[in-house]
Amino acid sequence: MLKSTPEGEPGVSNFALTELAIPVLSDKQVLCKTLYLSLDPYMRSQISGRHISGSIKPGDVLHGETVSEVVESLDENYKVGDKVRCMGGWQEYSVHSAKELTKVSEKIAPSSYALSVLGMPGLTAYAGLVWQAKPKAGDVVVIPAATGAVGSTAGQLAKSLGCKVIGIAGSDEKCAYAKEQLGYDECINRRTEDLASRLDELCPKGVDIYFDLVGGEILNTVSARLAVGARVILCGLMAEYNQKERIGGPPPGFWIRSRATVYGLVVYDYEHRRQEFIDACLPLVNNGSLKTREDIAKGIAAAPEAFCRLMQGANMGKALVQVS
Amino acid sequence: MLKSTPEGEPGVSNFALTELAIPVLSDKQVLCKTLYLSLDPYMRSQISGRHISGSIKPGDVLHGETVSEVVESLDENYKVGDKVRCMGGWQEYSVHSAKELTKVSEKIAPSSYALSVLGMPGLTAYAGLVWQAKPKAGDVVVIPAATGAVGSTAGQLAKSLGCKVIGIAGSDEKCAYAKEQLGYDECINRRTEDLASRLDELCPKGVDIYFDLVGGEILNTVSARLAVGARVILCGLMAEYNQKERIGGPPPGFWIRSRATVYGLVVYDYEHRRQEFIDACLPLVNNGSLKTREDIAKGIAAAPEAFCRLMQGANMGKALVQVS
Repeated sequence: MLKSTPEGEPGVSNFALTELAIPVLSDKQVLCKTLYLSLDPYMRSQISGRHISGSIKPGDVLHGETVSEVVESLDENYKVGDKVRCMGGWQEYSVHSAKELTKVSEKIAPSSYALSVLGMPGLTAYAGLVWQAKPKAGDVVVIPAATGAVGSTAGQLAKSLGCKVIGIAGSDEKCAYAKEQLGYDECINRRTEDLASRLDELCPKGVDIYFDLVGGEILNTVSARLAVGARVILCGLMAEYNQKERIGGPPPGFWIRSRATVYGLVVYDYEHRRQEFIDACLPLVNNGSLKTREDIAKGIAAAPEAFCRLMQGANMGKALVQVS
Repeated sequence: MLKSTPEGEPGVSNFALTELAIPVLSDKQVLCKTLYLSLDPYMRSQISGRHISGSIKPGDVLHGETVSEVVESLDENYKVGDKVRCMGGWQEYSVHSAKELTKVSEKIAPSSYALSVLGMPGLTAYAGLVWQAKPKAGDVVVIPAATGAVGSTAGQLAKSLGCKVIGIAGSDEKCAYAKEQLGYDECINRRTEDLASRLDELCPKGVDIYFDLVGGEILNTVSARLAVGARVILCGLMAEYNQKERIGGPPPGFWIRSRATVYGLVVYDYEHRRQEFIDACLPLVNNGSLKTREDIAKGIAAAPEAFCRLMQGANMGKALVQVS
């Protein structure tokens, strides 16, 4: 649970581990044992009280999506052993009504993929890139957090659609991975390279699609370099999650000049199209053309440290906790 | 002509009047006498060197759209007496090739309307509101500079489409005009009322469409109050035209939270649809349901003062100079 609200970057001391009895089921409830817990940057925003999905205060169990296994069921539609996706939170066990559960198809293997490339981060990438930005072959696409759970999927999808894809990442190791494994044309190390001049070099005609996952100065720098007709997906705000106050955006003149269309993206709005996304991406995952990498910590006690690493950008791939 | 580049609000001393000989025509040129000169906020941006249409430096004649009359013609398609629309600039006479001229239909009367409600400001309002924002009946629409050339047209169009229309203006006189003559449901005096709390009162479910003409703090305040699915048209930056540097925009989180779609609007992109706009709006102007008001200064020597008044928001309606 959250022990205290961090100022700036969270530390493991902001979290506490407690033990509670497993509730006795009533009505048609289902008891689930957590297999994998997803750790995502939006959780920092919940802790700050700024996320649309709700706030987390000291004493609250942290929310989080899980792949879980049914271990006891009073609902005829769920049998012991079924794998489900639910908001199990940072817990070893969770109790749900049937309407809070979604079965995880056996075709999704390993089942952790239902939280990564074929789960919420994958759907986010697909909705923003394919449904909102509508890439055309030859478009120049820029993706920050290029090797992260959303960015790595968006980058590979853009590449498969014939775009020139430029990543931005926080280490040489991540840049090498982006280029060598994920197929990015280029990847800029934001800690050691000058982003503005590198973008000028790599995108002399401007940026057609910018899939923003970070906000802050990177959003500003890319917005100053958009091509006419650009599309900008606003999807994440890593730069402000650790800040007390929201950070202002780029001067609107950048978006007027480029006649940009800017889309605010909240993945929940695309839940009704999840199957369409899975149908499109499952074959790509299975044939190896849509790669994923998971950064898996072991045991619920490891969740705080893994989350803090995620917020420092020290993870490599989708941050997960294998709980049991 | 521009005499010196102003810092902050321009004054009449930044401009100078000079007299030059009327050029002798060559090839298929056409000599035009300016009837009306349009004064527009974007001119301040040209003086700052930040407008996409080009920069104005000391010694340059200021640009500007005019309704002019052909007084001499070497082109068979233009006869003496024809009324045309062209970029005549801040001048009594201007020389053009035929391809720089557009005939002004006799149906547009007075011909100054080709620079106001049936001209560029009207087309801007129509493109942003109707083609980009696509209003639905019941939408809550907020328009700053509510009585200005663009705002007054957008406001009346939104009202005619069944929207609830809230204006923002800089004086009680303008607010009264917006409500009594233009049909706004409400109009907020930004100099004497608290915009945030008034918007909270008037738009308890949030703002569906915001047609931004000003940028700065008003854009920020409205963006914090958008409804889910909102559309924001970015079209003008009055707040920064007098500033040395561009002003940052709202925190992107406001646009993510509301799943806003934000459109950068440059009216030149809609030139090819001008006739479609005129066909839609001319009947509304003629039957009195689309009203316009023009703030007309007399004589080219009056242009600097009229422009400075426009940049202070002291004009009432479309700023024009009747040159001859």
